[in-house]
Amino acid sequence: MKPDPQPDPGDLIATEIDRLREMLAHDQGQRARRLLKKMHPAKIASLLETLTPPQRVAAWHQIDARTETKVLAHLSSALRARLARDLEADTAMESPHSDAGADGADTPMADEPETQLRLVLEALELGKLKRIARLFRKLHPARIAGLLESLPATERGAAWDMIETERTAKVLRHLHEEVRRRLAAEMDLEHLVEAARGLEPDDLVDLIQDLPAATGRQILEAMDRRERERLRSMLSYPEDSAGGLMNMDQIAVRANIKIGTLLRYLRLREDLPPNTDKLFVVDRQGQYQGILRTRRVLTARPETRVSELMETDFEPVPADQASDAVARRFEEEDLSSAPVVDTDGRLLGRITIDDVVDVIREQSAHAMMGMAGLDEETDMFAPVLASSRRRAVWLGINLITAFLAAWVIGLFEGTLQQVVALAVLMPIVASMGGIAGSQTLTLVIRGLAMGQLAGGNTRLLLLKEAGIGLLNGLLWALVVAALAIVWFGNWTIGAIIAVAILLNLICAAVAGVAIPLLMRRLGIDPALAGSVVLTTVTDIVGFFAFLGLATLILL
Amino acid sequence: MKPDPQPDPGDLIATEIDRLREMLAHDQGQRARRLLKKMHPAKIASLLETLTPPQRVAAWHQIDARTETKVLAHLSSALRARLARDLEADTAMESPHSDAGADGADTPMADEPETQLRLVLEALELGKLKRIARLFRKLHPARIAGLLESLPATERGAAWDMIETERTAKVLRHLHEEVRRRLAAEMDLEHLVEAARGLEPDDLVDLIQDLPAATGRQILEAMDRRERERLRSMLSYPEDSAGGLMNMDQIAVRANIKIGTLLRYLRLREDLPPNTDKLFVVDRQGQYQGILRTRRVLTARPETRVSELMETDFEPVPADQASDAVARRFEEEDLSSAPVVDTDGRLLGRITIDDVVDVIREQSAHAMMGMAGLDEETDMFAPVLASSRRRAVWLGINLITAFLAAWVIGLFEGTLQQVVALAVLMPIVASMGGIAGSQTLTLVIRGLAMGQLAGGNTRLLLLKEAGIGLLNGLLWALVVAALAIVWFGNWTIGAIIAVAILLNLICAAVAGVAIPLLMRRLGIDPALAGSVVLTTVTDIVGFFAFLGLATLILL
Repeated sequence: MKPDPQPDPGDLIATEIDRLREMLAHDQGQRARRLLKKMHPAKIASLLETLTPPQRVAAWHQIDARTETKVLAHLSSALRARLARDLEADTAMESPHSDAGADGADTPMADEPETQLRLVLEALELGKLKRIARLFRKLHPARIAGLLESLPATERGAAWDMIETERTAKVLRHLHEEVRRRLAAEMDLEHLVEAARGLEPDDLVDLIQDLPAATGRQILEAMDRRERERLRSMLSYPEDSAGGLMNMDQIAVRANIKIGTLLRYLRLREDLPPNTDKLFVVDRQGQYQGILRTRRVLTARPETRVSELMETDFEPVPADQASDAVARRFEEEDLSSAPVVDTDGRLLGRITIDDVVDVIREQSAHAMMGMAGLDEETDMFAPVLASSRRRAVWLGINLITAFLAAWVIGLFEGTLQQVVALAVLMPIVASMGGIAGSQTLTLVIRGLAMGQLAGGNTRLLLLKEAGIGLLNGLLWALVVAALAIVWFGNWTIGAIIAVAILLNLICAAVAGVAIPLLMRRLGIDPALAGSVVLTTVTDIVGFFAFLGLATLILL
Repeated sequence: MKPDPQPDPGDLIATEIDRLREMLAHDQGQRARRLLKKMHPAKIASLLETLTPPQRVAAWHQIDARTETKVLAHLSSALRARLARDLEADTAMESPHSDAGADGADTPMADEPETQLRLVLEALELGKLKRIARLFRKLHPARIAGLLESLPATERGAAWDMIETERTAKVLRHLHEEVRRRLAAEMDLEHLVEAARGLEPDDLVDLIQDLPAATGRQILEAMDRRERERLRSMLSYPEDSAGGLMNMDQIAVRANIKIGTLLRYLRLREDLPPNTDKLFVVDRQGQYQGILRTRRVLTARPETRVSELMETDFEPVPADQASDAVARRFEEEDLSSAPVVDTDGRLLGRITIDDVVDVIREQSAHAMMGMAGLDEETDMFAPVLASSRRRAVWLGINLITAFLAAWVIGLFEGTLQQVVALAVLMPIVASMGGIAGSQTLTLVIRGLAMGQLAGGNTRLLLLKEAGIGLLNGLLWALVVAALAIVWFGNWTIGAIIAVAILLNLICAAVAGVAIPLLMRRLGIDPALAGSVVLTTVTDIVGFFAFLGLATLILL
């Protein structure tokens, strides 16, 4: 390809050069980047030639990784060498705090995620984007994804452009859903398709499911027919099922062949997909018959037949099994991979441990974030408005429960007016109940998630938790009563608060067991809504017991 | 071995038979079990002969798996057959709801954890412990561990005795720390050592670390010298480091050998350890040089040398690396196994994905349970007293913050006495702040755990969260104000609560970002204590803003 910058009239180029110069002079890196992104590589090359060396380096920093190679092709070799030298001089000054002064070009790598993040943020602030490209080249795609997620939206776009095209797909795969969707939405289709080709089918399926339907269709259409059909059949399974987790890179063999033959076949392939600890044995119709561990193949004599080494008692995973159940099985049986079959027992694909690890991580993130009503907030730097809207729902739900509690207090306005000490002490009763209840609730939610609660032992758990509520209720009732008596010099109030706390802690224990069990029966995820319902109960019981008793006794 | 029941005088046996009969007649399965456990197998055999068939079956149910085989050796073959028949008749009635009536002895297996648990609980209630033995024989050790954890202490002991000796070790390995420690404490040393021999070194090291020092020493002494030295060197690494996670079952090869030679060597071994996706290349001194993927071995020609296929750029894991960092690397790079080296670069062992999955699970359990102050509570059925004591600490800490809030309210006793509506509304202000703050807190804790927060982007996150606080503050301030005005018909109170909520939500956002960052700098785990400190802040700010404003404006 040769430089071919004719189409534009000279004065137009001149204007763009002037604008670019001005932007660089005023440190408007982002605007310069946008301008460069729209220009033809050949034009950028000719433009670079007209700049002064410092301007050139500054402009070069703003050119994304995709355009970079194209621009380089248009540059004279002298200019290319010059640019490389200038950049090296820049990176030599990269880490002023570095104590390894011997070899400036090879500054020590930052191993800690925080240090890497600091490097990226610094480079963004100085507009030295090529430093990011340099760092990214040395990092694992997953780590790059982690760094991108730590950046606010505009900076994220700039850093994203510094990833080499062949690696964008791999980085995309490691991003969280929300961030991935947002970045994919900004990419042009050509680039997206290019990236998509580098993804494993299961990750590509995930990506397509996250994108707007039209974009997903366009990506599918860009694939070749065989691949497209594969993807279509995978897209027919829900994302959180075995079918949605599986890949189709399994190696299937027949039972009657010899290990020697199998080894010859494997040698033809040159390499096996990662996590191939098992091959799968199928019959002529593709029916799953058993597994053959690769370690068996390694240790077997060539004349042995597959049928002698295969294990027929390895249960395949049904394609419609929930991904939770798949994860549990991988975990319990220490699996690295497992075959997936359809309802007729035909081998469809396989699930590998790396995807299961992602499921486990997501489950735990879901459990933790869900408790704060943040279930869908996987992008730490989501736009303020989007985040506000999502969180407002949770606050609104909480407001209802808060008003319920307020209504209970309102019932006793008369009492409060006469004994104002009650208003001072009442939050203590509610708060202790809330804490004790949430302890029980957390325990039960975990037990449910692990399938450790069934009809027979919930009664025992209820008794145990009520026992704990009783013991801790007695202990803290006495402590709070003593403190209240010292504070207000009123023995009756001490007695009332003691009884109220005891009652509330026992109720909290019962509610902590009953609420998640009930929710589960109603098909509601207790990890999401359990704590709101629980605090409603402990607030109401706490206020009612305390103020009600006070009304009965004090008035 | 022949029956040899002489040592005991006849009347003593008679008494034991009578006692046993009585226990069985009165359904005292547990006492019968204890009695039988103390008796010599030969004596049990002779005793069984004197019982009526129903009594015999009932007694048989109470004999644990270890004694069972020994007793069987002492029984006449006629009695053995009889017993088998009787038991089969029992298991045929096992699941009355079963719809597969054709073959009584082969009732359909319960696949769901809950169904299995129900079967176990039912068997325990009826004293038909052999049903549990039968179920356990078909289950994976990890699943048995899960079932044991779902049982209260006494029942757990009974079910535990039904596990075949050769599997106890594997079940032990899958139990959570607290449960494992408790069960191991009840086992006699001989049995424990027998079980320990079946454990992989890394799990055995975990077990020894969980046991009292004396028991651990005894187990070590029962091992052969080589094994003992291995274990000692592993015990020298902390449990949560790479050294504590590693196993020593790695296969090390030299770079200069041919694949054909390697394959011959592997064939001699007959089988490889699970998760062997890599062999490790070392030099004469045992220095780590690189990895050799088994999939490369499978696809290589026999005359190729290891040095041509090995990858020298695979970074080994230092033995003192924290297990969190190891887990992150496995996850990011989709590893199945990785070599562990000492500070001199010598190969020590390897870490496999199954142990990493356990680390990830534990991390997530820790995060979830830690937020409720339940960090150490891994046994759902821990004794009431032990649980009460642990949870009391958390309640006590919470009490201090509750009293701080009460103290703030106490400052405004005079105001409350005059405008009792304030007492009714004040929990709403505190509660909204608490919810909004915990949303921010959860997000920041997760970001910290993933290494996504460093100096440069915390300011941006703070701005973003404050923005969300402002938006949601405005929204809910208006809603709450409107509701308060409708309720109390007082515009001033409405205005006051609106301002208080707005202030509290912005403070909550700032506190939600600042508290975990500060705690981290002080070396405190924000996942453990963050929420208590946060609610203290939101309660105090909420009450102070609301009551303070009211005092200024209304009085």
